[in-house]
Amino acid sequence: MTHYRIDISYDGTDFAGWQSQAARAPRTVQGVIEDALKRLAGGVRVRVAGAGRTDAGVHALGQVASFDLPAPIAPAELQRALNGLLPADVRVWAAESVPEAFHARKSAVSKLYRYVLDAGPAQGPMRRHQAGHVRCTLDAGRLRDAAALFVGRHDFASLASSGGSVKTSVRTVMRSETTLLAAPEVEGSLPGGATLVYEVEADGFLRRMVRSMVGGIVAVGRGALEAEDLQRALAARDRRAWPPPAPACGLTLVRVDYGAMLR
Amino acid sequence: MTHYRIDISYDGTDFAGWQSQAARAPRTVQGVIEDALKRLAGGVRVRVAGAGRTDAGVHALGQVASFDLPAPIAPAELQRALNGLLPADVRVWAAESVPEAFHARKSAVSKLYRYVLDAGPAQGPMRRHQAGHVRCTLDAGRLRDAAALFVGRHDFASLASSGGSVKTSVRTVMRSETTLLAAPEVEGSLPGGATLVYEVEADGFLRRMVRSMVGGIVAVGRGALEAEDLQRALAARDRRAWPPPAPACGLTLVRVDYGAMLR
Repeated sequence: MTHYRIDISYDGTDFAGWQSQAARAPRTVQGVIEDALKRLAGGVRVRVAGAGRTDAGVHALGQVASFDLPAPIAPAELQRALNGLLPADVRVWAAESVPEAFHARKSAVSKLYRYVLDAGPAQGPMRRHQAGHVRCTLDAGRLRDAAALFVGRHDFASLASSGGSVKTSVRTVMRSETTLLAAPEVEGSLPGGATLVYEVEADGFLRRMVRSMVGGIVAVGRGALEAEDLQRALAARDRRAWPPPAPACGLTLVRVDYGAMLR
Repeated sequence: MTHYRIDISYDGTDFAGWQSQAARAPRTVQGVIEDALKRLAGGVRVRVAGAGRTDAGVHALGQVASFDLPAPIAPAELQRALNGLLPADVRVWAAESVPEAFHARKSAVSKLYRYVLDAGPAQGPMRRHQAGHVRCTLDAGRLRDAAALFVGRHDFASLASSGGSVKTSVRTVMRSETTLLAAPEVEGSLPGGATLVYEVEADGFLRRMVRSMVGGIVAVGRGALEAEDLQRALAARDRRAWPPPAPACGLTLVRVDYGAMLR
């Protein structure tokens, strides 16, 4: 057995998320990669572990996957062969052989997600599959104050979607920052609007946690809630206390870090 | 009759271009706008003039259209109503009533087009409908030299597609500039690649002229031709002397200018 890591980017628009589901299930990223690897491995089924289980409609620039192949293949050749077999909405941009101990999800020490949200009367048509959209005006200072609440070690039970199977909802957020850009700075956006770019890095994320974070930040940014209300809702550890999550299409898994073990 | 101007952005991916075609023809931008206006005008057919007849797959940030309506309607209301009736891949971002003499195409004094081309082993999946892609490496200096050839008044017969119905192929190019960006500067592009952004402004364009310009610039940029070869091919006024055009998906009509008459 030879153990590999691949770095992947995908357009989540036409996928039912990362994770393979029951037989005859909808199209998933894991599924199309496992199909391609099976062809490369001469019909042997290959199981792939992904760093982040992105939901339907969520994109990735730097998703990481690990797997074993029954026979060794040069990483550059593996990358070329996979890109030849994969559909155009998934691309492998790096491949390498790694120690057996490397596991794309379990070895990860942190992940960086980005959420992009257009705010204005109309959304640029080229952006409708890659950014959320709200019609209201957002205040840069209020967005920043709301985002800052998440930094540190917190119990994020209020932001957890049902259906998760994790033991604890405590996570450590290293970075939680908003940037509000005027329309001309954002490719494809329309005059008169603004775009919120939210970046959050943590040691792990609960299901829909980033989209819930954005839901909370936007509620404060448009003036529907005060940052103090959001802080109370976080402390309540109750999903019913939290504003609804932002839509999936604005979210991208940007990067997974593995610390000293691997780049 | 009241005369209007609207400013439009669209994602050209799912359109057979701007211009309406014969009955039962494929979906066009002009067609969906005329359908929406007909509903607003109580069933009366409204004919719309567009500034640029973009081809299938070509996008627009700042397309301009003009038309008459049988009954006056406040421009802000017209914009809101149209966006309510139009599909999500077309958005109206400005509307105003204008003098009867204004014609979106005939009154235009210049247009600005942008072509975006990713160069590298694999294209970022989010970019596959909004940028062309070549696997070769491009040289910034050679790209710049090739683009500079187009500036000024030239007969562009070598770059004209068949099927055009124009009287002359002489056009004046005011600006023709390339920028080569490294991957991290370009949202959604993959590590290790580069992106060419080409902007060209002229008093008018022949059919497929910008895509032919890009075809020629890239031939020089990757070393297949010298700038002098391209200059000779331009002087030949013969379509067969010119490299093939770049694909439609990388092209965007950015802006139309009307000089002193209107903004």
